[in-house]
Amino acid sequence: MRNIKLVLEYDGSRFFGFQRQPRRRTVQEILENALTRFFDRKTKISAASSRTDTGVHADYQVVNFLTPSPRSIGQIQKGLNALLPVDVAVKEVAEVPADFHSRYQVRSKIYEYRVWNHPVRSPLHAHQACHIPYRLSLSRMRQGAKLLTGRHDFSSFCAAHGSAKDRVRNIKSFRIIKRGFLILFQIEAEGFLYHMARNLVGALIELGRGRLTVNQLQVILKKRDRRSAPSTAPACGLTLLSVSY
Amino acid sequence: MRNIKLVLEYDGSRFFGFQRQPRRRTVQEILENALTRFFDRKTKISAASSRTDTGVHADYQVVNFLTPSPRSIGQIQKGLNALLPVDVAVKEVAEVPADFHSRYQVRSKIYEYRVWNHPVRSPLHAHQACHIPYRLSLSRMRQGAKLLTGRHDFSSFCAAHGSAKDRVRNIKSFRIIKRGFLILFQIEAEGFLYHMARNLVGALIELGRGRLTVNQLQVILKKRDRRSAPSTAPACGLTLLSVSY
Repeated sequence: MRNIKLVLEYDGSRFFGFQRQPRRRTVQEILENALTRFFDRKTKISAASSRTDTGVHADYQVVNFLTPSPRSIGQIQKGLNALLPVDVAVKEVAEVPADFHSRYQVRSKIYEYRVWNHPVRSPLHAHQACHIPYRLSLSRMRQGAKLLTGRHDFSSFCAAHGSAKDRVRNIKSFRIIKRGFLILFQIEAEGFLYHMARNLVGALIELGRGRLTVNQLQVILKKRDRRSAPSTAPACGLTLLSVSY
Repeated sequence: MRNIKLVLEYDGSRFFGFQRQPRRRTVQEILENALTRFFDRKTKISAASSRTDTGVHADYQVVNFLTPSPRSIGQIQKGLNALLPVDVAVKEVAEVPADFHSRYQVRSKIYEYRVWNHPVRSPLHAHQACHIPYRLSLSRMRQGAKLLTGRHDFSSFCAAHGSAKDRVRNIKSFRIIKRGFLILFQIEAEGFLYHMARNLVGALIELGRGRLTVNQLQVILKKRDRRSAPSTAPACGLTLLSVSY
């Protein structure tokens, strides 16, 4: 069997997340249907680098699957793109060693959270950015991001129903970039807890808005209790930006 | 009666264009419903700077309407934005002189046409850019844009069913900008014929692709016959970018 890696891009708006669920339109189901049709043989993926939530986009999601098919890399890409709907595309295809696993071997992932920070909401950005009408202090949010960078127990930023036992994660970098009225939060980590990116951004927004101090954020981080932290930022602003192995 | 000017932004994807039509979701209808609800009095707009087509977006569309209401500019903006759906917003509100007319007094408008120029389509750009998979020569397209700039009879680039009798228009500037894999065609003119922006871009794409020469484009322009020119570029790439008075 050949092990094939795919890089996917998708607009998450009309998907109930990546992972297959009964009676829901998911990226995994749409992709596996296309694989099965293309190879004319039931084909499932082995794994994905990230199980993005409902509404979350991906500019660079990596999956892999096994196939006995001799079809070329180029044929696989063209064939799948012809079968996939307008909101998913295969950006890259590569044949990888048998032991490549798109989830376990991730070295780091970058998520980008976009905020449209203007008193008036923007219909042309509504799709991929969350609207925050209040003035946000970049310097305060950057102080918060600095505090969160590094290896910490992120229990306060993990969804209450998250299943991970070890909640220590390592944020390698946390950049906040201003581009016009957009604010981009780029978080790079080896791994993320459930809802972690959106919970971190939710807290930084409270900080930027002046409803939380950097000291209070420090206390929240140390408490290791989700109930102590501000609420989760909405899904539509989040994009899986890159994955490295 | 006060004359009120609104600047609108909208995502054209789910609209059958700006202008009201029976049994179709149009920007004009949605806006007039909001105005009527907000003022609690039947309120229609006097005019719009442009009647954008089905699927065409607007980053800056100007309309005006008359009202006897004493409500402040700020109240009008907040109230309308609360009533309008996620794909339309009022960016600015101003009280203008009684003789201000948002269509007749336009000095120039800029339309931007976006092309995603990469072998693979991009789901995250599909909404606001047209996918052209072939390699396009920027320098050839810029030669074509230069040829089209200025005052010409644009009959060859006006939809066959366009009603304008005088088809002379003045293109003040025609810029082509590359930003990553996006190519932005920005056309500024005092006025545009029906489908003119998309027809001009359709011709430049043929030029960039090498299926048309600059000399042939010159001949097409001189023929003043729509049947001689390449086809119209799709609507989804087009945005009304600005209007000046």
